[in-house]
Amino acid sequence: MDLNADLGEGFGIWRLTDDEALLGLVTSANVACGFHAGDPATMRRTCEHAVRLGVRIGAQVSYRDLAGFGRRRIDMDPDDLRDDVTYQLGALDAFARVAGDRVRYVKPHGALYNTIVADAEQAQAVVEAVRGYDATLPVLGLPGSVWLRQAAAAGLTTVGEAFADRAYTPEGTLVPRRRPGAVLDDLDAVVARGVRMATEGTVLSEQGTPVRILARSLCVHGDTPGAVEVVRRLRHALCTAGVALSPFC
Amino acid sequence: MDLNADLGEGFGIWRLTDDEALLGLVTSANVACGFHAGDPATMRRTCEHAVRLGVRIGAQVSYRDLAGFGRRRIDMDPDDLRDDVTYQLGALDAFARVAGDRVRYVKPHGALYNTIVADAEQAQAVVEAVRGYDATLPVLGLPGSVWLRQAAAAGLTTVGEAFADRAYTPEGTLVPRRRPGAVLDDLDAVVARGVRMATEGTVLSEQGTPVRILARSLCVHGDTPGAVEVVRRLRHALCTAGVALSPFC
Amino acid sequence: MDLNADLGEGFGIWRLTDDEALLGLVTSANVACGFHAGDPATMRRTCEHAVRLGVRIGAQVSYRDLAGFGRRRIDMDPDDLRDDVTYQLGALDAFARVAGDRVRYVKPHGALYNTIVADAEQAQAVVEAVRGYDATLPVLGLPGSVWLRQAAAAGLTTVGEAFADRAYTPEGTLVPRRRPGAVLDDLDAVVARGVRMATEGTVLSEQGTPVRILARSLCVHGDTPGAVEVVRRLRHALCTAGVALSPFC
Amino acid sequence: MDLNADLGEGFGIWRLTDDEALLGLVTSANVACGFHAGDPATMRRTCEHAVRLGVRIGAQVSYRDLAGFGRRRIDMDPDDLRDDVTYQLGALDAFARVAGDRVRYVKPHGALYNTIVADAEQAQAVVEAVRGYDATLPVLGLPGSVWLRQAAAAGLTTVGEAFADRAYTPEGTLVPRRRPGAVLDDLDAVVARGVRMATEGTVLSEQGTPVRILARSLCVHGDTPGAVEVVRRLRHALCTAGVALSPFC
Repeated sequence: MDLNADLGEGFGIWRLTDDEALLGLVTSANVACGFHAGDPATMRRTCEHAVRLGVRIGAQVSYRDLAGFGRRRIDMDPDDLRDDVTYQLGALDAFARVAGDRVRYVKPHGALYNTIVADAEQAQAVVEAVRGYDATLPVLGLPGSVWLRQAAAAGLTTVGEAFADRAYTPEGTLVPRRRPGAVLDDLDAVVARGVRMATEGTVLSEQGTPVRILARSLCVHGDTPGAVEVVRRLRHALCTAGVALSPFC
Repeated sequence: MDLNADLGEGFGIWRLTDDEALLGLVTSANVACGFHAGDPATMRRTCEHAVRLGVRIGAQVSYRDLAGFGRRRIDMDPDDLRDDVTYQLGALDAFARVAGDRVRYVKPHGALYNTIVADAEQAQAVVEAVRGYDATLPVLGLPGSVWLRQAAAAGLTTVGEAFADRAYTPEGTLVPRRRPGAVLDDLDAVVARGVRMATEGTVLSEQGTPVRILARSLCVHGDTPGAVEVVRRLRHALCTAGVALSPFC
Repeated sequence: MDLNADLGEGFGIWRLTDDEALLGLVTSANVACGFHAGDPATMRRTCEHAVRLGVRIGAQVSYRDLAGFGRRRIDMDPDDLRDDVTYQLGALDAFARVAGDRVRYVKPHGALYNTIVADAEQAQAVVEAVRGYDATLPVLGLPGSVWLRQAAAAGLTTVGEAFADRAYTPEGTLVPRRRPGAVLDDLDAVVARGVRMATEGTVLSEQGTPVRILARSLCVHGDTPGAVEVVRRLRHALCTAGVALSPFC
Repeated sequence: MDLNADLGEGFGIWRLTDDEALLGLVTSANVACGFHAGDPATMRRTCEHAVRLGVRIGAQVSYRDLAGFGRRRIDMDPDDLRDDVTYQLGALDAFARVAGDRVRYVKPHGALYNTIVADAEQAQAVVEAVRGYDATLPVLGLPGSVWLRQAAAAGLTTVGEAFADRAYTPEGTLVPRRRPGAVLDDLDAVVARGVRMATEGTVLSEQGTPVRILARSLCVHGDTPGAVEVVRRLRHALCTAGVALSPFC
C-alpha cells in the first residue's frame, strides 16, 4: 500500500503543512506546483527532501488561484487548462530532476480534483496535458471518476486512492464534505478504517454496509491540526497489521 | 550569424509582439516563461511555431514581475533567484518538448539581464540554475559581462550578442538607454550597422572610433512599432551581403 | 442617453483599448480595477482623463483573474466575492478622488456580469459590496437580470443598458454569443439599431419582431478592431437624430 | 504611548500573525493591503475587529511582491510607486469605512520601509501618494529618516516609532539586522527597554551609552514565535509603570 499526502503547500513566507514530518511518513508526496501554492524555493526544498527519503514526487496540479488555494472551480477553456497543467508539470519536473529524480505521477488538486470526477471536458484537458508531457506518468485519483476512466482510455496508467477519514456511500463514492459526518475526526476510527482498507479492501459505508475499495494508495491530509499524529499512527498500525508501505510507482 | 528576438511576450488577452511575423525572420526565439510575460497558452503556441519553422527556443527568464514587465531590478536572495529561474526553465521546456524540441539556450530578460552584467551574486544565481538544470545549455548575453564570464568559469557555453540599434562606447559597452542617441532610430543606419557587425565584426562607437564586436548573435527588438520591418530589412541586407543566418546552437 | 464603454483594460506594459479616443466619445467609463485588468498607473491616468473630459467613472469590478481577463466564471464563496468587490471599489475610488471626482456607478465585468444575470447568490454578494461601500451608487447591468432586480430590492438605483451590436430574442434577452449572428458586424446596421434604441426604445429581434428596450445607457465595445470608429459614428448618428448624450448619473 | 503591530498579514488560506490576540493588546494596527499580504477577506475581518476594539487602522503599504512578502527592494519608477500606494490606501480604506471607521495613518512595510529611510525619490513617491489621497493622514516611520523628513516638509503629520527589541547605535539609528546582537531575544530585556523608552525617552546603545528616543509609538513584532507573549508582557509592564496606552491619532 502507498501513503500519499499533499506537501509543499506554502507560498513565500507562508507555511501550511509540516513537510519535514510528513515526508518521513508517506511514500508519495503530491507537491504543489505554484498555481494554488508552492513557490519555487519550497518546491526545490520539498523535492530535495523527498529524494533524500525515497519518497516519490507527484505533481499536484491546480487551477491558477493563489487567493483561493485552488479550491474554487474555474470555468476554463479546456485548451487553456491543458496548457496550465503542462506548465506546472514542467516546472515541478525541473526541481525533481535537479534533486536527482523526476516527477513520477500526477494528482490534480482541490477544485480541479473534484471537477474532473464528473466533468469530461476538463478531465480530458488534464489527460491530454499528461499524455503530451510524458505518457508513461501514472495518474492518481478517485476510483470510478471520469478522470481515471478517460485517463485509462487514453493509455495512461491509473491509480485509485482511498480516504481513511472520509465517509463513503453504499455505492462507494465519497459523502460530500458539507454533509454532517462526511469527515471523521475520531482518530482511532480513522486508523482502523485505514487498516481495513489496506488489509481487506473494504470500508463500512454510512449505512454500515461493507463497500469494496479498490485503491493502491491511501490519501492522508496534512493541512489539519494533528495531521502528523494521524499519519504517524496510521503508518504504525499498518505496519503492525503487516501491510508493507511502498510507493505505487 | 544568428538573429535573436524576444517573443511570446503577451499575457492572457494581451499581445505585445507580432510573434508570427518575427518567427519567420529570426533564427533564435527568446520565449517569455511566465514571470514577466508569457501565459502557458502563448508559450505552447510560440514553441509550436518555432519548431515548425526551425527556430531555436531559448528561455527568456526574468524576475517575477508581471506588473513591471520584468524591467525593475529586485534585490532578491540569490537562492530564491536561482529557484525562480529553475522554475521558468522547466515550465518552458515542457512546451518545447511537447512541440518536439527542447529549450536550447537561456537569455535573461530586462532588469535581470542588466543587473547581471555587473552583479556577481545574481549572475551566479542564474549560472547555478542553468548548470543545475542542464549544464549543456548555452547562455546568451552581453560580451564581457560578469554573467558570461561567470557562466564560462562554471563550464557553460557562452554566446555574445550585439545590438544593431544601440550606440556603443569606445570600450565596446552599450551607451546607457537614458543618454541621448543611445538608441538609433534611423532604419538605414541600423541595417548598415547590423551588416557591418556581421561581416567585419566591428561597429563605430559614439565617438566614431571602430570597436571590435565579438558576437555570434544579433539581437533585434520586436516590441517597438515598425520592429518587424526593421528585422525584415536587416535580414534581407545580411543575405545580400552574403551572411548566412543560422541558429548559434 | 448615456454611452458607456470598458476602459483602462491594459495591465503594465500591455494595452487593450484606445482609452484616449474612447474617452472623447463616451459619457460613462467602466474603468478596470486591477482584478481582470487595470494596473494602478493606468487607473490613475484613465481617471484623470475622464475627469478632464467630464466622463463619469464607473467601477468595472471583476473576478480576480488576470490570466483569463475575468472571462471565466469562478465558483467563489459569496462573502469572498463581496470582499473582492469592496477592495476594487475602494482602490478605484482612490484614483477617482485624487483626480477630483469619485466613483459614480458600478458595472461588473465579463464572467461576473454574465454570472449574476441569473445567479442569485453571487448577485447578492455584489449588491452587498456596493450597499456596504456606498448605498447611493447606481449599478449598471442587463435589464431584467437577477443582478438588477436584487440591487433594486436592496434599495440601490439600477440602470439598464442595451447593446447596439448584439442580437436580441423576442423576449428581450441577448442571443448567446456562441450562436451565429449573435454579434452584428455590419457597421451601418449597428449604428441604425443604436439610434432606434435611443429614439424609439425598441430593437428588432432575431425574428424581426420589435422588442421594447428599457435602457438609459448604450454599451459600446472598445476592445475590437475598428471599435473607435463604431463609437464615433454611433455618437454622430445619435446627435443627428437629436438624441442628447449625457451621463446617466 | 502607542503600541503598533503589523496585522492581517495572511493571504488566502495562509495565516502569519495571531491577529485576534494582537488586536486585544495594541492600540494601532498596521493592516496589510494586498500587495505583500492581506487578501480582501482578511482585510475586512481585521478592520472589523480593530473597530470593535477601538484599535486604530493604519495602511501598511508595500511593494507588489506576494512571493517575497514585500521584503525585497524593487527599483520602481517613482510615479508607479506612488500609484501602487494610492491603490492600496483606497482598497484598505474601503474596508475601514465599511467597518465604521477609516484609515487613520500610513506605515510602509518591509523593504519599502527600509528603502525610504534613505532613498529620497521613493520616499517622495510615498509622500505624494499620501498627500494626494488625504493630506491629513499622519505617517509613521523611523525618526530621522528621509521618509519622515520629506513627509514633514510636505505638510504631513509625522510620528516616530521605536523598537524595544532592536539594538541601537550611539547615533540613535538601528543596528542592521544582519549584525550579531541586532535583534534582542531576551524577553525581560526587551520589556525593560520598552518601559525605559516610554518613561524616560531613552535606550542604551550597543556601546552602553544612553540614546535619546523621540517616539510616540512602540513597534512590536507579531510574526515571531512567542510574539503575543512579548506584547502581553510589555503592555503589562507599561501599565504597571504608569504609561497610558492610547493611539497616536
